[in-house]
Amino acid sequence: MSRYWSRVVRDLTPYVPGEQPKLPNLVKLNTNENPYGPSPLAIEALRAEIGDTLRLYPDPNAERLKEAIAASFGGRGVAPRQVFVGNGSDEVLAHVFLALLKHERPILFPDITYSFYPVYCRLYEIAYQAVPLDEAFRIRAEDYLVPNGGIVFPNPNAPTGRFLPLPEVERIVAGNPDSVVVIDEAYVDFGGESAGRLVARYPNLLVVRTLSKSHSLAGLRVGFAIGHADLIEALERVKNSFNSYPLGRLAIAGAVAAIGDQWHFERTRRAVIASREALVADLAALGFEVLPSTANFVFARHSGRDAGEIALALRERGVLVRHFRQERVRQFLRISVGTDAQCQALVAALREILS
Amino acid sequence: MSRYWSRVVRDLTPYVPGEQPKLPNLVKLNTNENPYGPSPLAIEALRAEIGDTLRLYPDPNAERLKEAIAASFGGRGVAPRQVFVGNGSDEVLAHVFLALLKHERPILFPDITYSFYPVYCRLYEIAYQAVPLDEAFRIRAEDYLVPNGGIVFPNPNAPTGRFLPLPEVERIVAGNPDSVVVIDEAYVDFGGESAGRLVARYPNLLVVRTLSKSHSLAGLRVGFAIGHADLIEALERVKNSFNSYPLGRLAIAGAVAAIGDQWHFERTRRAVIASREALVADLAALGFEVLPSTANFVFARHSGRDAGEIALALRERGVLVRHFRQERVRQFLRISVGTDAQCQALVAALREILS
Repeated sequence: MSRYWSRVVRDLTPYVPGEQPKLPNLVKLNTNENPYGPSPLAIEALRAEIGDTLRLYPDPNAERLKEAIAASFGGRGVAPRQVFVGNGSDEVLAHVFLALLKHERPILFPDITYSFYPVYCRLYEIAYQAVPLDEAFRIRAEDYLVPNGGIVFPNPNAPTGRFLPLPEVERIVAGNPDSVVVIDEAYVDFGGESAGRLVARYPNLLVVRTLSKSHSLAGLRVGFAIGHADLIEALERVKNSFNSYPLGRLAIAGAVAAIGDQWHFERTRRAVIASREALVADLAALGFEVLPSTANFVFARHSGRDAGEIALALRERGVLVRHFRQERVRQFLRISVGTDAQCQALVAALREILS
Repeated sequence: MSRYWSRVVRDLTPYVPGEQPKLPNLVKLNTNENPYGPSPLAIEALRAEIGDTLRLYPDPNAERLKEAIAASFGGRGVAPRQVFVGNGSDEVLAHVFLALLKHERPILFPDITYSFYPVYCRLYEIAYQAVPLDEAFRIRAEDYLVPNGGIVFPNPNAPTGRFLPLPEVERIVAGNPDSVVVIDEAYVDFGGESAGRLVARYPNLLVVRTLSKSHSLAGLRVGFAIGHADLIEALERVKNSFNSYPLGRLAIAGAVAAIGDQWHFERTRRAVIASREALVADLAALGFEVLPSTANFVFARHSGRDAGEIALALRERGVLVRHFRQERVRQFLRISVGTDAQCQALVAALREILS
């Protein structure tokens, strides 16, 4: 605390990301990273981009990347001017909150959700109302059909992993013609279905994506949004009042190549889904209740043992998972889906702890 | 304009960066890029970082980079916790405006300066007062010894290139114990003297730097700030409420190596300074008045010809320079210092245009 701080800084409660420990040989299942490396084509494109041209600024509009993203939506009619790109989806979301979710009325998001949302609200002084998930930790569409300043939720939701079927998403979007509805699809490629195909029909729908999970590029920092050109223009106005060049030359080159490698994408996301299904069965056999997940993580609680204790015991055995302290979910662990070997190491450690 | 836009978006006037044309063979002297490539050690470090680990998030605190930056200030007593890093100095500045310059009173900056400052003010709704440079386009320290909510200026100033000597900077810092004074040193390595050594003595001084110019990494996007740990903490709070991972793994690795390569840094900055001195002489011989520059650009006006016309005629000859439309400087051109060959191409084109 210092007299030099602005008032808003004093009132902030910053987000705390999952730990990035520097120790080797950890089974790191705490930050939803992809256990498989990025596309070899992305690696090649990054190598090719390294050189003398790094002295030059990147394209401030990253047109190549917008074109690649638009093309990846195939026949669903997304034009490059309906694409916004940023330095990871967290930056994209930050701009979304300021540009499209700051209005008179409070915005709505689930009580159990990505814990960065209330942080953005404090940063930009946006009022919000947390809408409780139902008793099975599901989003109920009807809860969002009330006056609001905007709506945002991940689909599948985090950290629950539960997916809200598209007809329910559409009910929320169609039922709020005066508000922007933001669907944060960080995890959608692991079994969900994207709301991207609804963008052409709803001028109030914005879909946010990241290359960190299903494209395995968390270390490169690229996210994007698609929506009506008017929504994208609002984001561009904020971006161009904040940082002209959020994506460097390497980020643009790597992202373009990763998005173009459909084969690697399919192969690795299917492998993650298969490992998740095996992990869910193993956890159930150990006495865990596991919420149905379409993400690259599962959210599970044990009938007999405290989640915090389990997390600590796992840590002592070199296995990191994430434990949130929020009352309603404090008996749950969020476990990222690793390789089969990592999942088996986790299960073996759990077996030891629970025996 | 759309009913979905927040009020602040409607009122924005975004910054317009210098053009990044895709045409080959241009003599591009419009965005103050370094004509020499980045350090070979940085290139090597980038190559080594490309691989499977890009699937993992970077260190959210970029500790390695903070340590490298602190070490680069040598005996001047900068600790890693006095260093803040971001996705280019524009992002660093954005956080500075929100965290440290948003107070009751208007902030002060020169009337002729980096045109992003008023843009940040509109984004964060910060009142400001533009303080006129003197008739020789110099900052006068005494103009800043009045009540204010904060002070920010580049040193050397942009686009004038004029350097305010450190004793004058110190007068401003010492004379404003209740305000944060931000010195934006994007261009300081080309002949100025950094206020970094004053940081240990003044808790209200923040020095902002970039790797885009003197380290020739505009394409990588890395900037930083140094100051009292309390000021840095304010920036970390905003950063962690905005984006946990502003710097990717490649940006961190490349920046650490670039900062460590003192030899390349010295060699290239000296080459730029030498080319600038030759360019200044050539421009003077062609009838230009050139402001004394300690930057990697010069700011010059011709006695007989309109600056806008000259810029257009240069463009037709494949030479890009920057022309600002602000009344007081509309007869000036800002010309980045290129290689000697590029400077000679510019001079030859000017000779043709002016004959």
